[in-house]
Amino acid sequence: MPSQMEHVMETMMFTFHKFAGVRGYLTKEDLRILMEKEFPGFLENQKDPLAMDKIMKDLGQCQDGKVNFQSFFSLIARLTIACNDYFVIQMKQKGRK
Amino acid sequence: MPSQMEHVMETMMFTFHKFAGVRGYLTKEDLRILMEKEFPGFLENQKDPLAMDKIMKDLGQCQDGKVNFQSFFSLIARLTIACNDYFVIQMKQKGRK
Repeated sequence: MPSQMEHVMETMMFTFHKFAGVRGYLTKEDLRILMEKEFPGFLENQKDPLAMDKIMKDLGQCQDGKVNFQSFFSLIARLTIACNDYFVIQMKQKGRK
Repeated sequence: MPSQMEHVMETMMFTFHKFAGVRGYLTKEDLRILMEKEFPGFLENQKDPLAMDKIMKDLGQCQDGKVNFQSFFSLIARLTIACNDYFVIQMKQKGRK
């Protein structure tokens, strides 16, 4: 049985390939569908209708509209690091009470 | 209930904090224990006794011996991207048969 972190790695790979299909990269539309399914609260809470365009633009490497696994991973990294920063602040505030 | 990718993000954060404790960073010893528990095959297959030292050195930002969440994430990124590259090659070879 894989460890929790091995399972994390597997899930990231399989999620990417599930949405990328045989092409091996995500288009803007693939990424939008992936975000809607996997981060349902994220796009809903975006008041900016151009949020997806901005995400695509920010993923520097994919100016050709193709998101490869590395770019996908860097997006997950940014989301997770932001979540972690928020979590650490919350924990510190809780510790002060 | 969180989606699979939300669960992935949670697991990465909680794994880091489980081993980092209240200090908020991993020492070389914490990282060794984390790697042993979460990637049991990895260190076992390393014939190089200095593998952990090399990993620590490679994690550029932690020359002070402290691995923060971002550095931890970059280590997981490198492992996962390497696994994905291997997976893609295997899939291509399978496709050719």
